[in-house]
Amino acid sequence: MSANQPKKKIVLAYSGGLDTSCILVWLIEQGYDVIAFTADVGQDDDFEAAKQKALSLGAIKYVCLDLRRDFVDNYIFPAVQADAIYEDRYLLGTALARPCIASGIIRVASEEGASHVSHGATGKGNDQIRFELASYALCPQVEVVSPWRLPEFYERFAGRQALTPRRTISALPVTPKSPWSMDGNLMHISYESGILEDPKVEAPQDLCTMTKSPAEAPDQAVRISIRFEQGIPVKVKNLTTGEEITGSLELYTYLNKIGGEHGIGRVDIVENRFIGMKSRGVYETPAGTILRQAHIDIEVLTMDRELRRIKQRLALDFGEQVYRGFWFSPECKFLRDCIKRSQERVSGTVQLSLFKGGVHVTARDSEFSLYNQELVSMDVQGNYEPRDAEGFIRINALRLREYHRLQGDLDQS
Amino acid sequence: MSANQPKKKIVLAYSGGLDTSCILVWLIEQGYDVIAFTADVGQDDDFEAAKQKALSLGAIKYVCLDLRRDFVDNYIFPAVQADAIYEDRYLLGTALARPCIASGIIRVASEEGASHVSHGATGKGNDQIRFELASYALCPQVEVVSPWRLPEFYERFAGRQALTPRRTISALPVTPKSPWSMDGNLMHISYESGILEDPKVEAPQDLCTMTKSPAEAPDQAVRISIRFEQGIPVKVKNLTTGEEITGSLELYTYLNKIGGEHGIGRVDIVENRFIGMKSRGVYETPAGTILRQAHIDIEVLTMDRELRRIKQRLALDFGEQVYRGFWFSPECKFLRDCIKRSQERVSGTVQLSLFKGGVHVTARDSEFSLYNQELVSMDVQGNYEPRDAEGFIRINALRLREYHRLQGDLDQS
Amino acid sequence: MSANQPKKKIVLAYSGGLDTSCILVWLIEQGYDVIAFTADVGQDDDFEAAKQKALSLGAIKYVCLDLRRDFVDNYIFPAVQADAIYEDRYLLGTALARPCIASGIIRVASEEGASHVSHGATGKGNDQIRFELASYALCPQVEVVSPWRLPEFYERFAGRQALTPRRTISALPVTPKSPWSMDGNLMHISYESGILEDPKVEAPQDLCTMTKSPAEAPDQAVRISIRFEQGIPVKVKNLTTGEEITGSLELYTYLNKIGGEHGIGRVDIVENRFIGMKSRGVYETPAGTILRQAHIDIEVLTMDRELRRIKQRLALDFGEQVYRGFWFSPECKFLRDCIKRSQERVSGTVQLSLFKGGVHVTARDSEFSLYNQELVSMDVQGNYEPRDAEGFIRINALRLREYHRLQGDLDQS
Amino acid sequence: MSANQPKKKIVLAYSGGLDTSCILVWLIEQGYDVIAFTADVGQDDDFEAAKQKALSLGAIKYVCLDLRRDFVDNYIFPAVQADAIYEDRYLLGTALARPCIASGIIRVASEEGASHVSHGATGKGNDQIRFELASYALCPQVEVVSPWRLPEFYERFAGRQALTPRRTISALPVTPKSPWSMDGNLMHISYESGILEDPKVEAPQDLCTMTKSPAEAPDQAVRISIRFEQGIPVKVKNLTTGEEITGSLELYTYLNKIGGEHGIGRVDIVENRFIGMKSRGVYETPAGTILRQAHIDIEVLTMDRELRRIKQRLALDFGEQVYRGFWFSPECKFLRDCIKRSQERVSGTVQLSLFKGGVHVTARDSEFSLYNQELVSMDVQGNYEPRDAEGFIRINALRLREYHRLQGDLDQS
Repeated sequence: MSANQPKKKIVLAYSGGLDTSCILVWLIEQGYDVIAFTADVGQDDDFEAAKQKALSLGAIKYVCLDLRRDFVDNYIFPAVQADAIYEDRYLLGTALARPCIASGIIRVASEEGASHVSHGATGKGNDQIRFELASYALCPQVEVVSPWRLPEFYERFAGRQALTPRRTISALPVTPKSPWSMDGNLMHISYESGILEDPKVEAPQDLCTMTKSPAEAPDQAVRISIRFEQGIPVKVKNLTTGEEITGSLELYTYLNKIGGEHGIGRVDIVENRFIGMKSRGVYETPAGTILRQAHIDIEVLTMDRELRRIKQRLALDFGEQVYRGFWFSPECKFLRDCIKRSQERVSGTVQLSLFKGGVHVTARDSEFSLYNQELVSMDVQGNYEPRDAEGFIRINALRLREYHRLQGDLDQS
Repeated sequence: MSANQPKKKIVLAYSGGLDTSCILVWLIEQGYDVIAFTADVGQDDDFEAAKQKALSLGAIKYVCLDLRRDFVDNYIFPAVQADAIYEDRYLLGTALARPCIASGIIRVASEEGASHVSHGATGKGNDQIRFELASYALCPQVEVVSPWRLPEFYERFAGRQALTPRRTISALPVTPKSPWSMDGNLMHISYESGILEDPKVEAPQDLCTMTKSPAEAPDQAVRISIRFEQGIPVKVKNLTTGEEITGSLELYTYLNKIGGEHGIGRVDIVENRFIGMKSRGVYETPAGTILRQAHIDIEVLTMDRELRRIKQRLALDFGEQVYRGFWFSPECKFLRDCIKRSQERVSGTVQLSLFKGGVHVTARDSEFSLYNQELVSMDVQGNYEPRDAEGFIRINALRLREYHRLQGDLDQS
Repeated sequence: MSANQPKKKIVLAYSGGLDTSCILVWLIEQGYDVIAFTADVGQDDDFEAAKQKALSLGAIKYVCLDLRRDFVDNYIFPAVQADAIYEDRYLLGTALARPCIASGIIRVASEEGASHVSHGATGKGNDQIRFELASYALCPQVEVVSPWRLPEFYERFAGRQALTPRRTISALPVTPKSPWSMDGNLMHISYESGILEDPKVEAPQDLCTMTKSPAEAPDQAVRISIRFEQGIPVKVKNLTTGEEITGSLELYTYLNKIGGEHGIGRVDIVENRFIGMKSRGVYETPAGTILRQAHIDIEVLTMDRELRRIKQRLALDFGEQVYRGFWFSPECKFLRDCIKRSQERVSGTVQLSLFKGGVHVTARDSEFSLYNQELVSMDVQGNYEPRDAEGFIRINALRLREYHRLQGDLDQS
Repeated sequence: MSANQPKKKIVLAYSGGLDTSCILVWLIEQGYDVIAFTADVGQDDDFEAAKQKALSLGAIKYVCLDLRRDFVDNYIFPAVQADAIYEDRYLLGTALARPCIASGIIRVASEEGASHVSHGATGKGNDQIRFELASYALCPQVEVVSPWRLPEFYERFAGRQALTPRRTISALPVTPKSPWSMDGNLMHISYESGILEDPKVEAPQDLCTMTKSPAEAPDQAVRISIRFEQGIPVKVKNLTTGEEITGSLELYTYLNKIGGEHGIGRVDIVENRFIGMKSRGVYETPAGTILRQAHIDIEVLTMDRELRRIKQRLALDFGEQVYRGFWFSPECKFLRDCIKRSQERVSGTVQLSLFKGGVHVTARDSEFSLYNQELVSMDVQGNYEPRDAEGFIRINALRLREYHRLQGDLDQS
């Protein structure tokens, strides 16, 4: 940049940690006016300290947006409606937060007249993709600066280990790093890299911080009920203490708390990154784990079987889209709309017991229940004619019998 | 049947219990020569007693086939390969046993020259369908007698409750019935009907018999490893005691034992029957629950991401086919072949901890691992060029930017 | 029915033809008060004659509803939006008409206080299912009388051939039957059974009546344009003559006319009935064939690629649901809603040429086009950086290279 | 490259045309030893002239492989088995040829000890992706040089238009270019760019070269039969002339010839490139169009309905994989294996008529036909009990009636 040009403004997704502090300083060196931005999505950070550090390192402004309720209402709850899960195990805690954060940073960039945005996600991970796809989708003309993909940056800061004893930027504090990286928000904490990189070595016992280990969880189960309306949790009741919690953020936080106490929601998995490599991570997602079980239960009770078969397949696609960073895409918006449509009558109450890491659904009820106790009863006939089943079976068998007759053996040989 | 005609032979799936004893006697009344048949699929029954009862009630023969290893090898393990699950929760323990049993009864019918088969499944359930579709598929000309769908039978024995004080067939023992029905085999025990029919009432604490309740399970986790080859478990090692178990039936039984001790595999669900009604059931599936978690883990480690996406969707179809009784169908045979093909390199060892109802995967390793530690590492670059991700993201964003530019807003409004 | 009881009212789907006339008389014999009902869905029938015949045969009332516009707007056009097709070839002309007709008959039954409905569909076909599922779905308590499934009826009228020389009901006219059966409506005419039953024998040259044969079609193509809004055709323009047609029924009828003249839309296929058997049919669907090609064209132009991939799979399900008679089901209603949602911006104009049985799309334009001529041009760079493709490809290759390195050969051996 | 280093060998996919001649010269300028490689996949090129030109421009060697039969047997026919089609219209002629060609170039590179490969595909298209993904998958360590993505190349040769009057490389011949680009092989010719870039302008009448226009096609239809074995065409018979053609390449070429004469297989479409932009192309695929119709017909006759539903969805995925260049991927190999498995009994003969651009199936027969004429007949009952349909319908309606009763209206409102 020439000295006479006005400096370019850039909004940096800033955590207050070492990596993004390095980036902040580096961006200033490159001639940007840096606005440090923190999205409060429930992570356990000291935003005031982040502000002070950002300004002391030379940011022209620090902006913190409280996006917690936005995150719960507009990202987590649609995923609850979808029963979203990636590769059978990952509840998408980070993947859901990224578009929320990106939406915030684009808003700030727009308000501050910044043409550029930047972030500290690495060049091998999913988050760079999620962050940038969301940014481009919301603001096609935005310029993204991704220092961890720039040799002039990453060769200087050579690998995360090298960040620890940092001499090149003297303003940076020297703090010892834990031997893994973590990322947390309201929904979950994820742990990866460092000593976790070897998938055949167990994760350390003291890794998790959001949940107790099942072994240390209380010896008494806690019993709760969750009320859903149109697939959205609207009330949690602690059946042991009688507490009732309403409000999306409030009940989600509450479920995190009791879920965490009871050791709910830890998984240790290998997953497939969008970038094409497999990685190993440990996740703890207490409220998300509880809500998924509860939602499935009320959904099966109130939703037509065939509708749910279709919805289940859409949700599989949805989980993959979210994982890959396509939240703000025509297809993901479409799926959210379809899934929302499917939830019109997914209302009711599920009763659960939380114990030593386990979520156990014990009962459920709904004003839209499609369960017909008389119809299903073994003791009364209900409005049902057993003879009908004969024809049903015989017609279903027609194709199988013809196949056998004409093309032969179906045995499993 | 006229007196001069030779009597028709019928093979009855006979458990020794009240229902099928009623049917046995009734079939004799209808003029059949009845061969009582029991398939040993691991249920906890006294086959010698069943034999004695059948013969004393008038059966011309009693045949018991030990199908336990067949059940494990040819029905349960293909489901393990598929990670099969119905409606996100049911591991298909009954649905997998039915075609195995039906295959046995058709074999006996063929050997004994019987033109008819019969069973005691009710007219509202799935098992009648599973039993009969399998029978027709394997032997298109077989005649099935399903007494619970015949008014002349069920009006006489009016509902299961009426079976208790039974006067009409004096040879039958009068035993008090439990206030629910259960069905067990090697893979699981299911409980339904009676007091379980109200889905908003919790199941009794003492219902389950195959597993301890998590609360009563040991305070010490047990640690095991499971070795898979081509998606099939071939060895279980108890890392606490050092025991090693091989052999399909042996290791499956062992996993049931330790899984049961640690309270693994209970679910209380509402499900959608093929017949079109919702029903409530409680299932306990200890080994199946452990194997599903372990198999998913080794599968994600060794299988290509995109191949697994396809396989996952096939498995969803497979679970529905099995549930609906289409095991012996061209489409299910096809899916089993496809899924088996997908498992060629799903070999390796998974380490797990079982504790208070929870199955926790802790580590995994494989000679076919597609996990590349150097590639994924945050500390070394590996054979990876971060700049490539830039292009990857920008090309993926192209479509999203165009969409925004031409058709507008993707925000979630 | 006892003499003193009021007679039960039944609404019969009545065509005026031999089969339903037989049924009308038979129902009267069974003691019903019969209301003969004809839905005008564009079939080439003489409704006044049908009325006279029905009343002369003893019907207490004759009702004819003009459902043509309803059929086009609420059944055909949603199928156009879906690009619906069954087994790659059948455009669902009969399957779409059945729920429309059933909806009409249920409306009449409700207005007339009739508890029963009846129809002339045979016991081997799809239409009985479509008719009855729709009826039960719209009016769960309705009673359906399906004479062709009742031995007391069909043994008397033994097979369709026997209907020709009919002595048992003297009031019935004796008309020679054509050696196949046909069913027509606005959307198509289908031909099946009789001499068409052998799939290896060609259909007669003079079978079709709605379309000219391609050989006899004009030697000059006609050129038209079709304007869609939200996936719905709203205007057809004959580019040769300058005619413009608007109005759903009007333009559909017009497309039938010119499509028919130009030999558009004949297929001779084997298909899989829901009942489980394969059947052979010949269909002619002029307007439907044109609209499907035109709609696909405008859809690809205006719809995001990934959204369309999802929509395409939903449409596959939709086609199967419609074929199987589940129009009025929660899942089909859901799919219609989803597909409608997908069409929000599917507006634009497609230009086509119709010639000797062929529909040739030649050009298209849209105000919501996602086609960006500058971006795609080989001559200008547009807002595109070729280097980005490098990274895109290399990241997509990452997984493939790893696979090769770790698990080996992908050659097709 | 330093003067003392041995020069790097590169294999260039060389057509003899202007673009790849430019690249050839440029690669030599960059210091490579260039081996010019042509894959004969049936394009209409003069390979001897290409050889002379390559050598005269400085290539150290020219290699031409005749891959025509390989292309038909191992690429086109698996696509025929799949009924493969992209976005409902494109038969994948180019997409199928690319992996075949890439496989050839990798073979030559291996034999010649070349570490690099190069091609003339542009930076906006699909072919660069197909070519390179295949190359990387087959030979992970290969280095790809893609000049059209390198600014030092494309800025010099600025856009395809600039290639015409070329002064910078004097050895190159100056030939006027047609105002579009075309790419041909055995399977099809594709036309795009230039004056075709505006999708609302009709393509020129004289564009196509492989097929006559329907208007100019003979006034007499030709009638043929095609015999399939396991989904593969093995014999074509001209029913008019009596000719019989066997041999994969021979029959495919024959179908191209008569298909071309009768104007079969032209489409003018907009499609979605993998890169994320929409493009417009005109394709002519005579044999492919005929075979797809014929194969669908024999497949429906011989394949179980439900198996085909699964196969149809796999084929949808397969078409997308092929289009996107993932032929040599674990998932595409898997799908090819699954689809091949589905074809075990897809054998039989289909009779067709080709006329003025239309392919009309008229009859079919198979030793594995699942069509049962007696069963489906309207005139005889066959082994079928109409009453069974009653139960079938009523059980299918159960869910719909319950839904209506409990959650209400299914009308389309």
